[in-house]
Amino acid sequence: MEYQKIIDEIAREIKPEKFPGEVAEYIPELAKVSGDKFGIHMHCIDKGHYCHGDSNEKFSIQSIAKVFTLSMAVRQMDEDLWERTDVEPSGDPFNSLTQLEYESGIPRNPLINAGALVICDVLLSQMKNPRAELLQFVRKLVGSDDIHFDETVAKSEAKHGARNAALVSFMKSFDNIHNKTEDVLDLYFHTCSLSMTCKELAQAFMIYANRGVILETGEQILSGIQTKRINAIMQTCGFYDEAGEFAFRVGLPGKSGVGGGIAAVHPGYYSVAVWSPKLNPKSNSALGMRVLELLTTKTGLSVF
Amino acid sequence: MEYQKIIDEIAREIKPEKFPGEVAEYIPELAKVSGDKFGIHMHCIDKGHYCHGDSNEKFSIQSIAKVFTLSMAVRQMDEDLWERTDVEPSGDPFNSLTQLEYESGIPRNPLINAGALVICDVLLSQMKNPRAELLQFVRKLVGSDDIHFDETVAKSEAKHGARNAALVSFMKSFDNIHNKTEDVLDLYFHTCSLSMTCKELAQAFMIYANRGVILETGEQILSGIQTKRINAIMQTCGFYDEAGEFAFRVGLPGKSGVGGGIAAVHPGYYSVAVWSPKLNPKSNSALGMRVLELLTTKTGLSVF
Amino acid sequence: MEYQKIIDEIAREIKPEKFPGEVAEYIPELAKVSGDKFGIHMHCIDKGHYCHGDSNEKFSIQSIAKVFTLSMAVRQMDEDLWERTDVEPSGDPFNSLTQLEYESGIPRNPLINAGALVICDVLLSQMKNPRAELLQFVRKLVGSDDIHFDETVAKSEAKHGARNAALVSFMKSFDNIHNKTEDVLDLYFHTCSLSMTCKELAQAFMIYANRGVILETGEQILSGIQTKRINAIMQTCGFYDEAGEFAFRVGLPGKSGVGGGIAAVHPGYYSVAVWSPKLNPKSNSALGMRVLELLTTKTGLSVF
Amino acid sequence: MEYQKIIDEIAREIKPEKFPGEVAEYIPELAKVSGDKFGIHMHCIDKGHYCHGDSNEKFSIQSIAKVFTLSMAVRQMDEDLWERTDVEPSGDPFNSLTQLEYESGIPRNPLINAGALVICDVLLSQMKNPRAELLQFVRKLVGSDDIHFDETVAKSEAKHGARNAALVSFMKSFDNIHNKTEDVLDLYFHTCSLSMTCKELAQAFMIYANRGVILETGEQILSGIQTKRINAIMQTCGFYDEAGEFAFRVGLPGKSGVGGGIAAVHPGYYSVAVWSPKLNPKSNSALGMRVLELLTTKTGLSVF
Repeated sequence: MEYQKIIDEIAREIKPEKFPGEVAEYIPELAKVSGDKFGIHMHCIDKGHYCHGDSNEKFSIQSIAKVFTLSMAVRQMDEDLWERTDVEPSGDPFNSLTQLEYESGIPRNPLINAGALVICDVLLSQMKNPRAELLQFVRKLVGSDDIHFDETVAKSEAKHGARNAALVSFMKSFDNIHNKTEDVLDLYFHTCSLSMTCKELAQAFMIYANRGVILETGEQILSGIQTKRINAIMQTCGFYDEAGEFAFRVGLPGKSGVGGGIAAVHPGYYSVAVWSPKLNPKSNSALGMRVLELLTTKTGLSVF
Repeated sequence: MEYQKIIDEIAREIKPEKFPGEVAEYIPELAKVSGDKFGIHMHCIDKGHYCHGDSNEKFSIQSIAKVFTLSMAVRQMDEDLWERTDVEPSGDPFNSLTQLEYESGIPRNPLINAGALVICDVLLSQMKNPRAELLQFVRKLVGSDDIHFDETVAKSEAKHGARNAALVSFMKSFDNIHNKTEDVLDLYFHTCSLSMTCKELAQAFMIYANRGVILETGEQILSGIQTKRINAIMQTCGFYDEAGEFAFRVGLPGKSGVGGGIAAVHPGYYSVAVWSPKLNPKSNSALGMRVLELLTTKTGLSVF
Repeated sequence: MEYQKIIDEIAREIKPEKFPGEVAEYIPELAKVSGDKFGIHMHCIDKGHYCHGDSNEKFSIQSIAKVFTLSMAVRQMDEDLWERTDVEPSGDPFNSLTQLEYESGIPRNPLINAGALVICDVLLSQMKNPRAELLQFVRKLVGSDDIHFDETVAKSEAKHGARNAALVSFMKSFDNIHNKTEDVLDLYFHTCSLSMTCKELAQAFMIYANRGVILETGEQILSGIQTKRINAIMQTCGFYDEAGEFAFRVGLPGKSGVGGGIAAVHPGYYSVAVWSPKLNPKSNSALGMRVLELLTTKTGLSVF
Repeated sequence: MEYQKIIDEIAREIKPEKFPGEVAEYIPELAKVSGDKFGIHMHCIDKGHYCHGDSNEKFSIQSIAKVFTLSMAVRQMDEDLWERTDVEPSGDPFNSLTQLEYESGIPRNPLINAGALVICDVLLSQMKNPRAELLQFVRKLVGSDDIHFDETVAKSEAKHGARNAALVSFMKSFDNIHNKTEDVLDLYFHTCSLSMTCKELAQAFMIYANRGVILETGEQILSGIQTKRINAIMQTCGFYDEAGEFAFRVGLPGKSGVGGGIAAVHPGYYSVAVWSPKLNPKSNSALGMRVLELLTTKTGLSVF
């Protein structure tokens, strides 16, 4: 297959051990992962699968999970949701409080921390057990029950959670958080702790390439409009204050996490997940961005 | 043709005279245009043309021209260009000085005023007569010599140009402007003064839908990579601090101007230009955005 | 006495019921106070007392208490204290988080909320029962045991305390808060709830006019240097983002509270407290500022 | 005399050649001054003069001159002036554009660059030849005709004046500059170029210690209220974003310049000027601030 050749070619060009970047260190669970890990899994809408390296190893998907909770919230309330969060790129680091202050507690978008915390608050108001429903949701997308929270990661996040606690209290002061601070944080930290492989991520993200439908089962999870909107948000807001750079170099809607994962889609064509733990100064996987840049350049397949 | 039906249908739904918004008033040439004007022209890569209303009436394209000057600069210097301007969404109004201050005189992107002024500075350094070359460039894209600056508009812009003069002086203090302030402003104000019709704009923008190649002549103006990058910048930065909203609702790379024009492309499929002078509070054509939202929704054709 | 004449004259000029401004409404205990209240008490270093109106009525001194907790912290640790808070005017509203973000969790000064919360944290680390010690401290300055917290006010503050909780969590994320969030907030809200009369406030503030010495007993509470520094901080930071205006019009170091109180001193000459609950848009007593402006103008006694 | 003893004692403690800090280098005329220079002149209201070191050597007073132009503007228009500039500390560096943007072109105070440029604009509107009148004004305060602009300095400032040009254009866009950009800048750069000795500065500043009256001649230059206001502005805004620190350590209204000079007053007691060219990171004379701190500490004479 041609795509496999391209991926192999990219893998030969790229040397994870020589690539610059730093593994995230704010919690021990992330800090102890080897910086040399590298996996990629591409899942095409014609059902082709192409992969390389550590693509079947579980890693902490961290902020990539924000796309899943956003999708769940969109299914629950759609239009009203957009009064709780805007959909604009932030132009500021992912955990900034400054814009919240000028904009009355409405987060810039649902993929920065403030926005994802509002999404958690929404899920808490709408569901009896959102934590369990999140697991169930991702398991259905992947078609596997082997998706779990990493409780050690969730606990570590909680220990270093003062900034997120500040965000919740701050938005509460603007009446944009309705549940208990502890409950919002607990759901949020669990969200961040999901462990998945590149293959599983690519499978889960296939709905964003397939107009909201699970490719294998045909089940409609999101409407076409909902899918388009989530993709648009990923494109403009999915990479902290480097969303423009990712669009410029890669040209796909996607989302990154500080565990070194990136999941992206080319609507109508494919989903792809890549994992390499060393981060660039903007907290995105350095090698991951480069690999995806090469992939869209060599295949000529980007949304632009 | 189906697209013509869809456009006619949209035109029936939309009532320009009842649509909210305010015509730009900072210069008399814009203020005196009727708010009821509405034109659209869609140009498909299979050479189909579909249009409605005032699509053959000239209007002031204003900031849409920033895409043309950016394209000219990309042809001149490519990689080095990106040390003079970043490619990130600004999150701030189009003429803000604040981010420039924190970021040492490097504009957030080439489509906000600061960035477009740097692009003018680049063209002045690289070309003998950039004003004439701009005209020639756009005429070639359109395939018509009937493209002109509106000198009255250029003069009015200059009269109200204190903010842009501040931007130039400010970037000069960071050594990111190399030519005379007056020369940079003169080129910039002429750029803003270009008059075009929806049809001409759609024709000119076809290169961004066609991997950099003029559809009619087959001439390669930009490489595939250059085209992808310019489209990415339009997607994340083309609508002032409403780029996220435009991606969310419309889902196309594009650029707006305070004259009420919007030009957008679906790479591989079509280019489209719409004109309606009444602006929303973020200075984008209110009706134009709505029409394009309906177009991508009804056709199902957006990049997401 | 001449000062009494001047005060009577001012009282005749000023009509509280006609003065513009709004009583603070964020907690019911403040909202229900009559906007027509007006009291003033001037205490001269030669032991003269001059007063007018409701000067013997208790009111909620709110942020004026920040000067007392600051004084207690200065007595405890002096030099090291200034690594926990800066001494610069903020130029921003009293509960802003923006500057904290740019300045790594170090509050601009100890009289804005963020700084006062750090001071509470310091007292919690240094004292077994800072709440009791605060009462004792103020009672000693006033020479009266009739100084109490208003528990209803403290509870109301806690109910509307999300913004202050955000400040504490935020500073904790920068490691500038060492005690439990709840404990810091509890001490802070009690601090705000102190009830005092104008006369009591003027007596308590006499140490700042008398080089740190209680006038009646001769007890040295603060050194000369400590007193000078606290006065300097009051001068540049005591009136939210209106410190410049207060210096410009009144010309005395002082501190205001949203209960409508202002306490100020002319070192070497007098202390003065004024109370009028209607606030100007910057949250300072509108009439209070005017009365003090007239006082320093008519007596010719200001530090400038 | 006791004051002379104290000054001598301070001079023995302080070693200019060992003191940290950097001479300003943005123009050659400042860069070439020896960092070891140190002069002080104290002028008491009882007509005593006390001095040390290079107190009779001319140096570039730079921003200290902003107090003189402010005084001239206050004499011209008083109340109306305060609609053109606020009187609040800026909390930002001296040449920031950020606050101007949020505050519609009204400078925070007349002692930051933006404010001083507005003052120059005011003088240009009010006087036929403000440059000549400035010279005449300062000469009268000093009682000497040997006060001149340094044209080489003025020309160098103009060469590096892009940031100030940006400020003028920016405020013009808010209609807060009425004269030609070049004229405002020319007056401003001349203002900065005044050369004076410590002795001359202390003599000129005596009016701010003496309720607006020239001590030697008895001529009333400013009213008592005007003097108080200018002193208040110096206290809260005279040291860029270190006004709080200066109040905290020194406790006198004053103004610094990047030439290394500081002039300050204790109303009713004395004026003092100190010069030492090495600047701290906030652009104030490092040794100058320390010397004044020692002076007010050892004499016990500060406004606080």
